[in-house]
Amino acid sequence: MEKKYLFSPGPTMLPQDIMLKMAEPIIHHREDEYKRIFQEVREGLGYLFQTKSEVLLFTSSGTGAMEGAVCNLLSPGDKALVVRGGKFGERWGEICQVYGIEVKPIDVEWGEAVDPELIAECLKEDPSIRAVFTQATETSTGVMHPIKEIAEITGTCEETVIVVDAITGIGVFDIPTDAWNLDVVVSGSQKALMLPPGLSFIALSEKAWRFVERSKLPKYYFDFKQELKSAEKNQNTFTPAITLVIGLRESLRKIRQEGLEAVFARHDLLARATREAVKALGLELFATESPSNALTAVKVPDEIGANEIKDRFFEEFGITVAGGQDRAKGKIIRIAHLGYYGHLDMIMVISALEMLLKEMGYQFELGAGVRAAEGVLISH
Amino acid sequence: MEKKYLFSPGPTMLPQDIMLKMAEPIIHHREDEYKRIFQEVREGLGYLFQTKSEVLLFTSSGTGAMEGAVCNLLSPGDKALVVRGGKFGERWGEICQVYGIEVKPIDVEWGEAVDPELIAECLKEDPSIRAVFTQATETSTGVMHPIKEIAEITGTCEETVIVVDAITGIGVFDIPTDAWNLDVVVSGSQKALMLPPGLSFIALSEKAWRFVERSKLPKYYFDFKQELKSAEKNQNTFTPAITLVIGLRESLRKIRQEGLEAVFARHDLLARATREAVKALGLELFATESPSNALTAVKVPDEIGANEIKDRFFEEFGITVAGGQDRAKGKIIRIAHLGYYGHLDMIMVISALEMLLKEMGYQFELGAGVRAAEGVLISH
Repeated sequence: MEKKYLFSPGPTMLPQDIMLKMAEPIIHHREDEYKRIFQEVREGLGYLFQTKSEVLLFTSSGTGAMEGAVCNLLSPGDKALVVRGGKFGERWGEICQVYGIEVKPIDVEWGEAVDPELIAECLKEDPSIRAVFTQATETSTGVMHPIKEIAEITGTCEETVIVVDAITGIGVFDIPTDAWNLDVVVSGSQKALMLPPGLSFIALSEKAWRFVERSKLPKYYFDFKQELKSAEKNQNTFTPAITLVIGLRESLRKIRQEGLEAVFARHDLLARATREAVKALGLELFATESPSNALTAVKVPDEIGANEIKDRFFEEFGITVAGGQDRAKGKIIRIAHLGYYGHLDMIMVISALEMLLKEMGYQFELGAGVRAAEGVLISH
Repeated sequence: MEKKYLFSPGPTMLPQDIMLKMAEPIIHHREDEYKRIFQEVREGLGYLFQTKSEVLLFTSSGTGAMEGAVCNLLSPGDKALVVRGGKFGERWGEICQVYGIEVKPIDVEWGEAVDPELIAECLKEDPSIRAVFTQATETSTGVMHPIKEIAEITGTCEETVIVVDAITGIGVFDIPTDAWNLDVVVSGSQKALMLPPGLSFIALSEKAWRFVERSKLPKYYFDFKQELKSAEKNQNTFTPAITLVIGLRESLRKIRQEGLEAVFARHDLLARATREAVKALGLELFATESPSNALTAVKVPDEIGANEIKDRFFEEFGITVAGGQDRAKGKIIRIAHLGYYGHLDMIMVISALEMLLKEMGYQFELGAGVRAAEGVLISH
């Protein structure tokens, strides 16, 4: 018998009832039934993003909505600050470059969070910077960037927006779009939303919509103005991934039922339990500051080998954890706890980690990780 | 009890075994298991498209791949011929315009097929035209365009490619990509592939890849060169709609098992049965020439009303047929027979049509449509 477990930061584990809901006979996307579903989805996304603005939905991975943010808000030759503290920060830079945006990188050591002061200085020095691109969680490092503080800075600049990739963030910890003046917030389906990949979401502030009005970059599939018009009629411009939208209604219902505060508290508890367990095993977090509640990136000692332990997780326990990407490759494993995860899921993955480490000759007290996690979990 | 039936040209009816396959526990897209699945999918797509070239896969509606065709092959100021004989021909024109392509429209009466001679003349007159955009089936009218003949013309021009939207075409009738020298062929998941919407596909000839090399338009999510590199490693550049890809493997298996020739013959039979039934009822086809085997567009007499009969199909029989789009709105209904449809499915929809027409006061011999359809079906 082989049981399998996903502890990767996207795709994450999926509730079976949602999967079965998506297996029901498909409906047509121009029917009234779909419009009712999509209306509920729109309301649910507003709740999730904590915004009164429309949250646009696209059939694509999160990267599609990221590209949409660039080509709908900016114009050729515009300047943008890009926080590059990992693979996904670099992605913002790549997209900007493709569209002829002048990228001013703020390079951050992988594992560290950006200092908002640096952004304030850059914007003071060059007020012609149109946008600051960053992540809520840099998924490649497990670090949370201080988006609230950055938004306080961009909030004072009439001609600069903050654009947040919150693909790994929305539904994990508090990201109140409107209250924090976040101009653009992007997310995707395969993270905290407990769905398969295939849908992306993006919310825009009034200020961001003013940017959209004057943008001169080409867009068609990811045309925000067109999609807003469609959404207001409870429609999608192009044929949407209908089954995923039906699943989305279910997952948004689950989130509303649990309540955002409880959802955030659950993620906080699971994340703390995981971090304390890792430390109790004598291992270090890759995020030297501001570790995200979405995932825990763990430095793996060279004598163990991150790739080897990652492979063994799968072979011996059917568990998928993520390895490191690009410059973190072979150095870390990443254990996700965003979405459909409960207390005992974390006990499982920590126990597996302990058994693997012991087999691989790492010196520590067997059971110490689980004990530390339990200590956190019962404090709840 | 309410049974529902989809006779819309996308989404189409889905085999329940595929739906349940997609409801199995999700796997991670960087695992070996996914790579094996994707390798099989790549081979199956090659079979379906009848090409030795790579068929790229994107998580998007078909329109995403259409946009990709424009921004990966052309450069600002390039000229393109666009066959506009319906809503989707117009879409090619819209996408081109967004990207600063000089559009030379060939406007075709809705319901008619383009005359390849016109295209030959245009290309002779202006050899600087870089691309001819057309449809295999114009879904809004039910007409099949002569793509083989157009490709014979573009095949003689070293600097002009044919770009075929075969979203409603691939897997319905014979479109041998390589044999016909089709440079670019686009398709999507929610038609003959018997899947939910969310995946698009695109195949490119060597000539088309040369165009890609020198294209100067911006692209990121739909970057063909990058996606080719990923595909060669049995990977997707960005997180794919994993569950849909798993379903795709199943539907490609079904198609290979039935065999392309048998698939085409089945669609031909169902289409002929439908057309003969419609004519036996005294109704006219909207496609005055080259009706496609993918769907049958039927003119609805004004005294009946296309919108009314479309609504009644749904209310009385749980059947979704499509209405007309744009200038065909209120004038036609469109009955699809592409994908997961058998002989008796067509009998059902024709019988429903008869009963509705009779109720609505239309004069004809009850049973005449079904009889005509049966006549075609038993001739098989």
